[in-house]
Amino acid sequence: MRNPLFLTAISVLASFATGQTQPQLDLMPMPATVQTSAGQLLIGQSFSIAITGFRDASMNGAVQRFVAQLSRQTGISFRPNSAAPTLVIHADHGREPVQRVGEDESYQLTVAGAGAKLTAPNPLGILHGLQSFLQLVQVTSSGFALPAVTINDQPRFPWRGLLIDVSRHFIPLDVLKRNLDGMAAVKINVLHWHLSDDQGFRVESKKFPKLQESGSDGLYYTQAEIRDFIAYARDRGIRVIPEFDIPGHSRSWFVGYPELSSGPGPYTLDGGGVNPIMDPTREATYKFLGKFIAEMANLFPDAYFHIGGDEVDGKQWDANPNIQSFLHTHGMKNNQDLQAYFNQRLQKILAKNHKIMVGWDEILHPDLPKTIVVQSWRGQQSLAAAAKQGYSGLLSFGYYLDLMWPAARHYAVDPMSDAAATMNPEEQKRILGGEACMWAEWVTSENVDSHIWPRNAVVAERLWSPAEIKDVHSMYTRLNAVSLYLEGTGLTHRSARVHMLQRMAGTADISALRVLAEVVEPVKDYARWDDSKGPIDFHAPLTRMIDAVSPESDVARQFRDVVETFIQSDCKDQAAEAQLRAWLTSWRDNDVELHALLDKSFLLHEDTPLSADLSALGAAGLESLGYLDKAQPPPDSWRVQTRARMEEANKPKAGLLLMPVAPVQQLVEATERLTRHN
Amino acid sequence: MRNPLFLTAISVLASFATGQTQPQLDLMPMPATVQTSAGQLLIGQSFSIAITGFRDASMNGAVQRFVAQLSRQTGISFRPNSAAPTLVIHADHGREPVQRVGEDESYQLTVAGAGAKLTAPNPLGILHGLQSFLQLVQVTSSGFALPAVTINDQPRFPWRGLLIDVSRHFIPLDVLKRNLDGMAAVKINVLHWHLSDDQGFRVESKKFPKLQESGSDGLYYTQAEIRDFIAYARDRGIRVIPEFDIPGHSRSWFVGYPELSSGPGPYTLDGGGVNPIMDPTREATYKFLGKFIAEMANLFPDAYFHIGGDEVDGKQWDANPNIQSFLHTHGMKNNQDLQAYFNQRLQKILAKNHKIMVGWDEILHPDLPKTIVVQSWRGQQSLAAAAKQGYSGLLSFGYYLDLMWPAARHYAVDPMSDAAATMNPEEQKRILGGEACMWAEWVTSENVDSHIWPRNAVVAERLWSPAEIKDVHSMYTRLNAVSLYLEGTGLTHRSARVHMLQRMAGTADISALRVLAEVVEPVKDYARWDDSKGPIDFHAPLTRMIDAVSPESDVARQFRDVVETFIQSDCKDQAAEAQLRAWLTSWRDNDVELHALLDKSFLLHEDTPLSADLSALGAAGLESLGYLDKAQPPPDSWRVQTRARMEEANKPKAGLLLMPVAPVQQLVEATERLTRHN
Repeated sequence: MRNPLFLTAISVLASFATGQTQPQLDLMPMPATVQTSAGQLLIGQSFSIAITGFRDASMNGAVQRFVAQLSRQTGISFRPNSAAPTLVIHADHGREPVQRVGEDESYQLTVAGAGAKLTAPNPLGILHGLQSFLQLVQVTSSGFALPAVTINDQPRFPWRGLLIDVSRHFIPLDVLKRNLDGMAAVKINVLHWHLSDDQGFRVESKKFPKLQESGSDGLYYTQAEIRDFIAYARDRGIRVIPEFDIPGHSRSWFVGYPELSSGPGPYTLDGGGVNPIMDPTREATYKFLGKFIAEMANLFPDAYFHIGGDEVDGKQWDANPNIQSFLHTHGMKNNQDLQAYFNQRLQKILAKNHKIMVGWDEILHPDLPKTIVVQSWRGQQSLAAAAKQGYSGLLSFGYYLDLMWPAARHYAVDPMSDAAATMNPEEQKRILGGEACMWAEWVTSENVDSHIWPRNAVVAERLWSPAEIKDVHSMYTRLNAVSLYLEGTGLTHRSARVHMLQRMAGTADISALRVLAEVVEPVKDYARWDDSKGPIDFHAPLTRMIDAVSPESDVARQFRDVVETFIQSDCKDQAAEAQLRAWLTSWRDNDVELHALLDKSFLLHEDTPLSADLSALGAAGLESLGYLDKAQPPPDSWRVQTRARMEEANKPKAGLLLMPVAPVQQLVEATERLTRHN
Repeated sequence: MRNPLFLTAISVLASFATGQTQPQLDLMPMPATVQTSAGQLLIGQSFSIAITGFRDASMNGAVQRFVAQLSRQTGISFRPNSAAPTLVIHADHGREPVQRVGEDESYQLTVAGAGAKLTAPNPLGILHGLQSFLQLVQVTSSGFALPAVTINDQPRFPWRGLLIDVSRHFIPLDVLKRNLDGMAAVKINVLHWHLSDDQGFRVESKKFPKLQESGSDGLYYTQAEIRDFIAYARDRGIRVIPEFDIPGHSRSWFVGYPELSSGPGPYTLDGGGVNPIMDPTREATYKFLGKFIAEMANLFPDAYFHIGGDEVDGKQWDANPNIQSFLHTHGMKNNQDLQAYFNQRLQKILAKNHKIMVGWDEILHPDLPKTIVVQSWRGQQSLAAAAKQGYSGLLSFGYYLDLMWPAARHYAVDPMSDAAATMNPEEQKRILGGEACMWAEWVTSENVDSHIWPRNAVVAERLWSPAEIKDVHSMYTRLNAVSLYLEGTGLTHRSARVHMLQRMAGTADISALRVLAEVVEPVKDYARWDDSKGPIDFHAPLTRMIDAVSPESDVARQFRDVVETFIQSDCKDQAAEAQLRAWLTSWRDNDVELHALLDKSFLLHEDTPLSADLSALGAAGLESLGYLDKAQPPPDSWRVQTRARMEEANKPKAGLLLMPVAPVQQLVEATERLTRHN
């Protein structure tokens, strides 16, 4: 006989592939399988931990950080008593000396009313399981507690990365460390450290000190700092891959060592115009790179080494007679062949130093061995092409956080979908995972967190969780919770925004400014780039509204959802209408509140027309609701005027988009249908 | 002929003693003299500094911190060019090896359109002047700028302190360091470090290691940490005075060394009941203290050493036959005589170690030399009594930040007023200054900032600025600005509150919770202490609403001010009424919004009746306005019902007071006058 109690007590969610409901737990990334059951584990002052099986200093450190974080979350200073431990942690064995791609990251977490157990083959799984444990802690009516749950979890892809560009704007180590903590919280296991580019060389080389001394504004990481940082990352289960982008994107190298370039020099960091590139035809170049790579290979323990290789602008090669003659002598058809030659030479140097080469799409060339990894900024087609030729690949297309896309758009990008869907199982295995990219043209240490987080958490979920986890509503609900959680780990993506708005306003009272700031988004893709203004001044302050606001407006998204609900109810849902009226009224009336501030601060002058547009938008929406309420068609004069107002509001201003324009337009259009039907 | 341009361009505010208007600058503490003039100094990327005169590593560090803070405030990365420096800094000579009471702290700061100059006899004045400079930076319509100004400044009192108790709740060094930064920002120059008390001994003693090992929960400062911390304080112009409270308040000593006590022992940190005190009759006690003080005198370089001496509960002395016999043999009349004997012995030990004794009121005894300093928690009368006997004094009465008083109440307390006003000039000179006190029964590292700041800034102003600076309206305007400024230096008094409310709510959306949190204050004085519940559990979480809210409600104060305006206008001021209606409506309607949250979280259950009271308060206020609008006397039934609602709302609940009760009561009473007049 079936036990009905058993059936009600346990809701099985073993497989998302079958399309079952996702559990309402604030976990991100969602584990591979989750079973919830009745009951909860209370977290009180007597909370205690027992470590059985393998343990070492790193594991002890992880448990200490876990306890500190749990204490911060709950406000409890734990005083373990001698009773049975609340949480038992067991790893079968230790980790590999250098964290390996594909090293087992699985874990099993069981939470019941009487206690919890976390087991894993090695401490990597323990790290991940502890993060899941922390995300499960909720405030309940009887105390802080975790729901009873059984999690069996492992990642879908072994390589889940975040690229941080520290060349365009230097990012200090404390900021990077808090980002490592954030990455660990969502189970990202690779930091791709973009350490050199045209605008700055950020690593101390003892062999070639002019690299950092001439190739930076004095802001770089010493080798001692880097060793400490890598240890910090390793303690959190994160590999650190250095990228030194060559032969292009390398002006910073040439400030100190112009002889490496293909042009006459001299070079400065600020110099615009020509894109200098490395000279692949001189043996001295390889001698230099041989020594440099040996030094860096020793500094960075990871098996992989990124050489960039993207966007090689061949103008210097074309203009250099020696290089042209080299091409001719070696029977090369074009610059692609020359870059392939360069990469082959590089690959040999790397192999000698026991490193595997990683590079962007452009390095793909049949002359290179199949061991290399191609990172695709171009898309799944390029990724699939590499896999079909036998190369391993990483997807970054679709995960560029600097393009200011909404989370849902990143979330929809899957390394295995679109053009990549044609791969056979063997080829699919070559897709190691992907990396979100934080290019740093428009971020500083102050706002880099808010451009990475919380959106990066959805890329983390895409790369960790089963492909079937893709419900956008659930994602946004959980993202909201994980965003708060991430701020609690030390990130500043929420608090820095407040600070920046207060700076602009020159006062603590930013309520009216927030109303505006919460409904705008920065222009998308590369719309902020303006070549007509010459090269970007990387020393200019990034303190405008465009720098402070979130890449994605939560308020606008919520407003849009309520407008949809309202329209779908045939404009009859009164609760929805009341909500819309509250928003629209606050927008309409906000301009008056804000005006003194917009006048007072030079940082806010440019936002004056935006505030006026928001007011007009609020008015247009309220007027539309008025006509809809009375089922009265609006006069033509109103239509003409409103069309003009909406067109004006739709134009980007101060680099910002007013996000509620489209949903308000839906309300305006609803009044037109009204006319037709009456 | 007079130059009218000159007259309009310069508003002279040379002396506040003459009762002239105080300038509208967001400076706190207000300088001794400020002259404003036309023009402003813009802060741009080329901002640069020249140091002329004295310089050393500490001064360079101060300038570096100043530039970093200016960069944070403005968001500008400075790139000094070779033109004339924006700010010239000149100190005549260096500081004394150990910062001395009364060492010159004066400075002169001149800001003009073309540049600024900061001069001082020594770097202490430079430190203060740099803080004034930072507080002057404003956002304007043409950029970040300082108004043209000439400041001649020096402190009224040489000893301006903050006591932080780290015994009851341990406060980590990073939290203390950010508080040192905050202290420096408002020119406080003494940290009085209350390092031992019944509940914990927080310093590493190498000679008597059981002091910290048995006398704490493992949380204490090592000597290396203390040296680093003292250097950090010195770099900021702050002296560090250690306090080891004896012979009372010293249970933590006896856990490891019970032989020092006057009772049989053994002792534990948690033990309630008896208040154990040191045995002043045994020579072994002085041998111990001799060694201990020699060790600590070497660790803490300041000339002053605080031995506590307060609240000696004589029960153990009374019960100990040996001590009673000692009293008899030495012809002592009572325990006061015995404590005086103890202090005389202590004073000799301190003098041998080149230290000056500081203690609380209770140490005052004619047998002690006039060199000692008496710190008064009892009041100006006690302070004046000491001064009249020739002793130096410090005022702490009226500056106890743990009593949850509003800033204005602390601000009104002057060391020279009330009973102290009878002192002659010679006696007045003996008043060195005062100290705010942060006793730590009810604060943790999480909320200690919000219990110190921003209120401590008004004590800082009272002790620095001329006595005539006492306009409360100006104080609150400037306090609002300085509070934001202090948060920008790294303090968390504003952000931690948000974090704590979010923890209680379990969500980021705390808008409804904030409405309630912003109008309540913790109960005052010692009303939170409840002896009937036994000794305080210092390990219990401090995560309730009472722990999160500000000791002073800004919203309630503003509401009260608008009610006053409205009543004074004979209930005719429509703008005031509209403001009141907005507040009252949000309060009335908030309970519905908040209810789900109050149910969901165990930390919020206790606030359920408060939320209902606030709703009732909003309704009563709105109904009162309704009667006033119509000039219609309310029915008796309403009066009876409203009186009951107000009485209920006036009762503290969950340790909190609903602050708008009194002003709403004023509105209710206004309706009664209405009846009488009609």
